[in-house]
Amino acid sequence: MTEHITTATIEADPVVPIIHITRDFRATPAQVIRAHVDPELFTQWVGPDNRTMTIDHWDARTGGSWRYFDAGDDDLQAFRGCFHEIGEHRIVQTFTWEGMPEGVSLETLTLTDLGDGWTRLHATSLTDSFESRDAWLASGMEVGINDGYAKLDALLAR
Amino acid sequence: MTEHITTATIEADPVVPIIHITRDFRATPAQVIRAHVDPELFTQWVGPDNRTMTIDHWDARTGGSWRYFDAGDDDLQAFRGCFHEIGEHRIVQTFTWEGMPEGVSLETLTLTDLGDGWTRLHATSLTDSFESRDAWLASGMEVGINDGYAKLDALLAR
Repeated sequence: MTEHITTATIEADPVVPIIHITRDFRATPAQVIRAHVDPELFTQWVGPDNRTMTIDHWDARTGGSWRYFDAGDDDLQAFRGCFHEIGEHRIVQTFTWEGMPEGVSLETLTLTDLGDGWTRLHATSLTDSFESRDAWLASGMEVGINDGYAKLDALLAR
Repeated sequence: MTEHITTATIEADPVVPIIHITRDFRATPAQVIRAHVDPELFTQWVGPDNRTMTIDHWDARTGGSWRYFDAGDDDLQAFRGCFHEIGEHRIVQTFTWEGMPEGVSLETLTLTDLGDGWTRLHATSLTDSFESRDAWLASGMEVGINDGYAKLDALLAR
């Protein structure tokens, strides 16, 4: 029996300023892509359990762009970027937290069909320095990733 | 008298997979930005002298996208990307040569007013590996950069 990665691994690349995230889902690549592209699905699962995502702008096509708000009890954060590529097994986009508008990451999501109804997600986030990469790793990002992917598991099961 | 950089410096970053390009122009930052944003101006100067640029798609705004063709005597190359940010002193965009569609660079153009009618352009191109960065550096890119910036000098002088 194959072991599946049902808690995300979050790893610093040893050579370049990239974060690697790997996680398996009981779904097809097409279902996982749709959960990232359809704004009504995306806002149901992305982010920590105690925060609410709302879309400001969403044009999920190659050459489109996006912006959303991430609201907690007493703060509101905004994130934005453009979609370089939306493919059947890959999404490439830019990513900025507007609290630090100079910082831009290049994010690549790659989906691999593992067979038996499972898909492996590999997400990379490339920044322009090891300092900014390591600041993201130290930011508590794993809470949002693990909460979010647990909600995505539940969404995919429905 | 200040020394100006009138032949581009093209340098490999020692720490991260970035190419740095630096070049001074006798113009304001606004004029240099306009020469990168206005498609009729951009196609007059970008690239090597022996090739012709034509626009396929051009939507130069934050969240827009672009695609152009680069034609030689017997070949046609296509390039495309999305505009993450178009500011008064900065342009951030993605960049793909469609001959290698998996490869995506994140490019940042920053303009600094040097005074006395001069502006310094600093362009960075960030890739996800040192191998792909070094392949760009070995590709003969300096011909297009130096030819292109000489044409941009002439355009800005008019």
